[in-house]
Amino acid sequence: MIYFDHAATGGTKPPEVTSAVVSAMQRWANPGRSGHRLSVAFAEKVYLTRELLSSYFDGYGAERVIFTKNCTEALNIALFSLKGHVIATELEHNSVLRPLAKRGNYSICPLTDGKLDLLSLRSLVREDTSALVISLASNVTGYAPDVRLIRSILPPNVLIIGDGAQAGGHAYLSMKRLGLDALCLAGHKGLFGIQGSGVLLFSDRFSPSPLLYGGTGTESFNRDMPSCYPERLEAGTLNFPAIVSLYEGVLYLKTHGVQDESMLSKTMHELLSPLVTLYSEPNSYGIVTFSSEKYPSEAIAAKLNEYDIAVRGGLHCAPLIHERIDRHAGGSVRVSMGYGNTLKEVDCFYRAIKEILT
Amino acid sequence: MIYFDHAATGGTKPPEVTSAVVSAMQRWANPGRSGHRLSVAFAEKVYLTRELLSSYFDGYGAERVIFTKNCTEALNIALFSLKGHVIATELEHNSVLRPLAKRGNYSICPLTDGKLDLLSLRSLVREDTSALVISLASNVTGYAPDVRLIRSILPPNVLIIGDGAQAGGHAYLSMKRLGLDALCLAGHKGLFGIQGSGVLLFSDRFSPSPLLYGGTGTESFNRDMPSCYPERLEAGTLNFPAIVSLYEGVLYLKTHGVQDESMLSKTMHELLSPLVTLYSEPNSYGIVTFSSEKYPSEAIAAKLNEYDIAVRGGLHCAPLIHERIDRHAGGSVRVSMGYGNTLKEVDCFYRAIKEILT
Repeated sequence: MIYFDHAATGGTKPPEVTSAVVSAMQRWANPGRSGHRLSVAFAEKVYLTRELLSSYFDGYGAERVIFTKNCTEALNIALFSLKGHVIATELEHNSVLRPLAKRGNYSICPLTDGKLDLLSLRSLVREDTSALVISLASNVTGYAPDVRLIRSILPPNVLIIGDGAQAGGHAYLSMKRLGLDALCLAGHKGLFGIQGSGVLLFSDRFSPSPLLYGGTGTESFNRDMPSCYPERLEAGTLNFPAIVSLYEGVLYLKTHGVQDESMLSKTMHELLSPLVTLYSEPNSYGIVTFSSEKYPSEAIAAKLNEYDIAVRGGLHCAPLIHERIDRHAGGSVRVSMGYGNTLKEVDCFYRAIKEILT
Repeated sequence: MIYFDHAATGGTKPPEVTSAVVSAMQRWANPGRSGHRLSVAFAEKVYLTRELLSSYFDGYGAERVIFTKNCTEALNIALFSLKGHVIATELEHNSVLRPLAKRGNYSICPLTDGKLDLLSLRSLVREDTSALVISLASNVTGYAPDVRLIRSILPPNVLIIGDGAQAGGHAYLSMKRLGLDALCLAGHKGLFGIQGSGVLLFSDRFSPSPLLYGGTGTESFNRDMPSCYPERLEAGTLNFPAIVSLYEGVLYLKTHGVQDESMLSKTMHELLSPLVTLYSEPNSYGIVTFSSEKYPSEAIAAKLNEYDIAVRGGLHCAPLIHERIDRHAGGSVRVSMGYGNTLKEVDCFYRAIKEILT
């Protein structure tokens, strides 16, 4: 199979990741719950992972790194902690749009030609605006807004919550350089982690509240969650296999650099440009999105499946950007490339799609 | 190491579980998100796991089986969905007590001699009581309340939410036989799953509401979560490795029977009885809990660690039962046995604790 669905979940992982998960299944302990040597060793590994994540993403210390089940949980914690008015954008995924719809009091900044309209963004800021939540790379087009520029035009008190689900691991993300107050990550996408490895990092001026309440192995007589982080936001048993996968995955990125898929993406855009309506431009995230008047996107994805090429058709859980860009109103075909993909696979894909469409 | 900390997280797993997780890391897809053959195959496996769990726990159909990150999340979903007054018991873990403290309007049924006081329970029922939430086996003493009897003395409209974190896999749990409207499970304890594999099963008269909002791969233009289960309660990418571990774990239980640790527990109780203050009675959950006036429980656990025996000292995130039973007010030492433990290990433990205390 040619796996071009990295934006749904990562493909091939560095062997270190798999080994670490296997090893985590061959010994066992609940980190932070008991005092025996394995439980302590596991707790140390959890702490080292927090430290690694905080240092790699230029965060605010190990205690401000929270392990969640997925990026959606990280975003929910951040968004339900915000007071007042919130701004989001048409780039956003339902992991942002649905929590916002539930909490209310938000505005959506529109796109112009697939890019964020900064004048509109500035005009949406109100006196009670507490935060902007923004995708650091669109899961539909791979467009990455200039967050540093955005930071500079927003009032300093407005927090920026970054949805790094697609950007993480494909571009280097520094919380401090980008001015992020929260960075939400999907470990299983670009970070080489396994599914179940979400992360929330947050700054020292953002104090998220728990969504889940439960045992923390500390302050057992306290009926509230402990006031200190990370315990405050981590109720119940942590997912140790997922945490070790993140450790190895991020260590791999730190050592080998991010998965910059610009070259594959550029080649794919050049090849596809005469055949289809492209919604993306070459990008380092490996995303190429298109549609064709010949078939609906789901049908094209199904035909590619017959060639044993895995892509995704449809709306990709991002309805607003489709309402804005989707000329054939049938959703789009998303090719998403990553670690392990080759130019030869791009060529195979090109021959397949040409056969399908002509 | 002698691993006697199964109640914190399960020990040795059947080889099928590890193989299934390794295989889930060697291929990759996001179940329910894309239409290619692997994504479809993974989605089918997820569905088969729901079916297996529903049939094994005598539940209410595959669609009423929700995958959560841990038992705590399952309990939080159930508890925050309840209206009106809720009754809990002194057996409960902080995964129940903390969500209840957050939502308010609840009463706690006391224990008498470590057992539930059914007269008190009946007297706590008010007109607006919507549910009883109850541990199906105490994580501190291994005491399992008679839920069938409790069902018979409660008004039929009062739902029963069962916390099966410790009971699951050690006793056979039938939702219908016990009269449960929700069953919350920690896959990584008695069910042989890996960490990250929580489950919520619920009856056809209980309609839990989402705690997390996000993408479901369906109804992308709907700003609310879909109205149908399981999608309504599962936002974001599912944890496929955890789900396959649950599949294999529960299949193993179905084939080989539950992990009934009565024999080990009985032997351990007999051996320890002259040495320590026991808080537990022989039980199938493999739990033996004690304290001693000689040392605090954490110190005994630390000394056992020097013999390379893993147990847990302290409050075990269950404060109320300790206030009730803990004669030395220093928490308790919990020995929790499970799959793979032997009488020889019990004997080693006995010799170690005798040396420590005499």
